[in-house]
Amino acid sequence: MSNTIPSDSVGIVTPQCIHFDEELSLRSGNVLSGFDLMIETYGELNTDKSNAILICHALSGDHHAAGYHDEEDAKPGWWDSCIGPGKPIDTNLFFVVSLNNLGGCAGSTGPASINPETGKYYGPDFPVVTVRDWVRSQVMLMDHLGISQWAAVVGGSLGGMQVLRWAISFPERLRHAVCIAAAPKLSAQNIAFNEVARHSIVNDPNFHEGRYLEAGTYPKQGLMLARMVGHITYLSDSAMREKFGRTITDLDSTGANFGRDLRTGKLSFGFNVDFQVESYLHYQGERFSENFDANTYLLMTKALDYFDPSVDYEGDFSAAFKKANCKFLLISFTTDWRFPPERSREIVNDLLKAGKEVTYLEIEADQGHDAFLLPIPRYINALSAYLKRVHAEGSADAS
Amino acid sequence: MSNTIPSDSVGIVTPQCIHFDEELSLRSGNVLSGFDLMIETYGELNTDKSNAILICHALSGDHHAAGYHDEEDAKPGWWDSCIGPGKPIDTNLFFVVSLNNLGGCAGSTGPASINPETGKYYGPDFPVVTVRDWVRSQVMLMDHLGISQWAAVVGGSLGGMQVLRWAISFPERLRHAVCIAAAPKLSAQNIAFNEVARHSIVNDPNFHEGRYLEAGTYPKQGLMLARMVGHITYLSDSAMREKFGRTITDLDSTGANFGRDLRTGKLSFGFNVDFQVESYLHYQGERFSENFDANTYLLMTKALDYFDPSVDYEGDFSAAFKKANCKFLLISFTTDWRFPPERSREIVNDLLKAGKEVTYLEIEADQGHDAFLLPIPRYINALSAYLKRVHAEGSADAS
Repeated sequence: MSNTIPSDSVGIVTPQCIHFDEELSLRSGNVLSGFDLMIETYGELNTDKSNAILICHALSGDHHAAGYHDEEDAKPGWWDSCIGPGKPIDTNLFFVVSLNNLGGCAGSTGPASINPETGKYYGPDFPVVTVRDWVRSQVMLMDHLGISQWAAVVGGSLGGMQVLRWAISFPERLRHAVCIAAAPKLSAQNIAFNEVARHSIVNDPNFHEGRYLEAGTYPKQGLMLARMVGHITYLSDSAMREKFGRTITDLDSTGANFGRDLRTGKLSFGFNVDFQVESYLHYQGERFSENFDANTYLLMTKALDYFDPSVDYEGDFSAAFKKANCKFLLISFTTDWRFPPERSREIVNDLLKAGKEVTYLEIEADQGHDAFLLPIPRYINALSAYLKRVHAEGSADAS
Repeated sequence: MSNTIPSDSVGIVTPQCIHFDEELSLRSGNVLSGFDLMIETYGELNTDKSNAILICHALSGDHHAAGYHDEEDAKPGWWDSCIGPGKPIDTNLFFVVSLNNLGGCAGSTGPASINPETGKYYGPDFPVVTVRDWVRSQVMLMDHLGISQWAAVVGGSLGGMQVLRWAISFPERLRHAVCIAAAPKLSAQNIAFNEVARHSIVNDPNFHEGRYLEAGTYPKQGLMLARMVGHITYLSDSAMREKFGRTITDLDSTGANFGRDLRTGKLSFGFNVDFQVESYLHYQGERFSENFDANTYLLMTKALDYFDPSVDYEGDFSAAFKKANCKFLLISFTTDWRFPPERSREIVNDLLKAGKEVTYLEIEADQGHDAFLLPIPRYINALSAYLKRVHAEGSADAS
C-alpha cells in the first residue's frame, strides 16, 4: 500500500553495501585488511558536492535512518522524524549519508560477518573498535563518495561523540558539527550501567565465549536483560510515570494485557509481571534481543566507555578542541539523565574556552534521553532553522 | 583482640531466635502456621517499658544492626554508626530492638528455611510477604517482649516504609515515626530496576525455579547481576565520580588491582574490566551473592514494589495518615536518586494535610541513597537531637 508512505517521507530507499579494500589500522593495534560499510543516502548531491550531511548512529542504530525499505514496511528508519523533504535535515536541500558503523550487525563488517581469513564468523575475534576508528572509516567512505567536506556531521548520543571526534581529528572536512544529547566522556555511572549489560551477556550460558553463532545458540536472556537496563536509562523517571505510573497488568485477561489501577487490579503475589512497566521492559528487551547481535552490543558499549578525546591532551578538553575549524550546535534535553544537560554544558564551556563558535540549546522535554529521537517542536524547529542557515551559507560560498 | 572494639560500640551481642506458634495471615491470602524471628537487642528496657525503639531494616539488612558477634568480628552491624552508647540511637537511653524480617535469610523464617509441613526447603513456596505482613509480625514480637508502645520506630529505605505502615496501621503503638530516605510508594523507574534484578535471578539456569537449594546449585550470576544494578542505584553519580572517576584498573599488576589514570593506564581492548568502577561492582556483586538468598531477594523487591498504603484510601495518602497518632521525623538526602527528596516531601505534604506533627530535614550529602547508613555530621546530630527529645518526653510522661 504505497499510500501509507507519508508525503514528507524520503520514500522507498535501498541500502548499498560498499566494500573497502584498503587496510584500516585500529586504535587497538589490530588491522582490518578490508571491510564493508552498509549505507543509505537520501536527497541529491549538488554539483560542487557541498551539500552533504553525514548521520552518525547511536548504540543500537544503523544505516536505515529514514524512509521505508518497501511498500509493506511497517516502520520507517530510526530518525525519520528529522530526515526528509521539508524536515529539519531537509532532503530537498541536502544529500544525506547514513551508515552502519564497523562492528555493527546490519550489514557492515562486524562480529556476525564471516572472517575472510578463517571462513568462520568473526564472533569474539572481531577487534574492539573505537569512535576514532569509526570516524576514520567514515573518512574513507567520504573519499569513496567524492565528498571533500561535509556541510555538517550530525549525531545524537554515541552519534554525538562521533561528531566531536570528527571536529577534533578532521577539522578541514566538516563545516558544522551538530552534537545532540551527548557527553564529552562517560561518567563512572554510565560505565557501570554498560558493565552490567556486558556482564549479563557474557554470563549467559548460551554466549559460548562469543561463539554462539558457531554453536548454533544465542544469548537471548543476556541481551534482553542488557536492553532492559539500557531502556531504563533512556527514559526519564517522569516519562515512565506518565507512561505507566503504577498501573497493573491484568493477569486474568486471555487476550492482550490491559492495564488496571492498583485499586482494582489484582497483584500476582508471585514473581510474575504485575506492573505495566515490567511488561513494557520485557517486550522491549525481547524484541531487541531477536534483532541485534550480542557481540555488537558488547563492542558498542566499549566504544562508549573508551571515548575520551581529552586523553591525548592531558585531560584538557578545550586543548583537544583547539584545532577544530567548524561551527558547533549542541543540544540537550532537560530530563535526560543518561547524558544530562550539564554534560553538554561541559562541552560548550570547553569549546568557548578554545575560542570556537557554538550555539547551545537546552530543550524542555519529558522523555529523557530518548527525546533526541522524537519530534519535539522546539527541537525540530531549532534544528531546522540552524540547518537552513548551513544551507544558505553553503550556497553563498558557491555563488 | 577485644581492644579493636571501640568504646562507643554496644560491644559483643548475641542474636536470639524467637519462635511464634500463632498463625499469621498474610496479605496474599496465605497463612503461616508459625514462624521464627531472629532478633538482637541493645541497651536496657526501663521499668515502665517506655524506652523501646524498633529498628526496621532495608532490602538486604538483617537483625545485626550494631556491635560485634565475637571479638574476631571484622565488621560491626549495618547501622553501627547510629546505634550505641552516646550515638543518635543512644543505647544508654533506649532499649533497641532489631529483627530480621519474615522471608529474610539471616535466621528468621524464609525461603531458605525448612517448611515444617514438607520437611524440605520452602524455596519458591514461601509466600510473598508485604510491608504490612512484616509490621504485623513486628507487633507479635512487641507483644512477646511485653512492650505496649514503642518510643519510636526507625528505619531507612524499605525500613522507612515499615515505619509509615506502623503509623497508619497501629497508631496507638508508637509515639514517634522516624522515616529516612524513603518514598510513599515506588515509581515506575524503581519498579523497573527491581524487575531487572528479578529477571536476572529467575533466568539464571541455576535458579531451578527457586529450588536451587534442593538441586544443590545457586543462581550466583543472577544474584550478582541483581546486586550490581542495585548498587548503581544506591550511589549517586557524583559519589561514583568522586570514588572512581574514569580511573583504569591496571591489568598488568600481578597483585591486587591498582588504579591508573586513563592517560597512563592501559585499556584492555577486550571485554575485561577496564575501569575501577567495574571491579568495584564485580566485587560488591560477588560478595553479596555469596551471602544472600536469591529467593529472599525476590521477596524483598516485591515487598518494595507492592508498598502503597494509599491503595485502601482511593490513592489519597493524607487520608491514609488521618488515623496516625505519632509524631514524625522525615529525613532525605540531596543526591539520593533512588528515593529523592521530592519523594520525602510528598510524604511531608500528605502528613501536613492530615494535620500531623512533622519535622523534615533534607541533608546535603554526596553519597546518594547510601547516605542514610553513613555518619554524616548534620544527619547524625539532627537524629541525635530529635531522639534526645523523644527520651526526655518519655521520662516526663513517666514522672
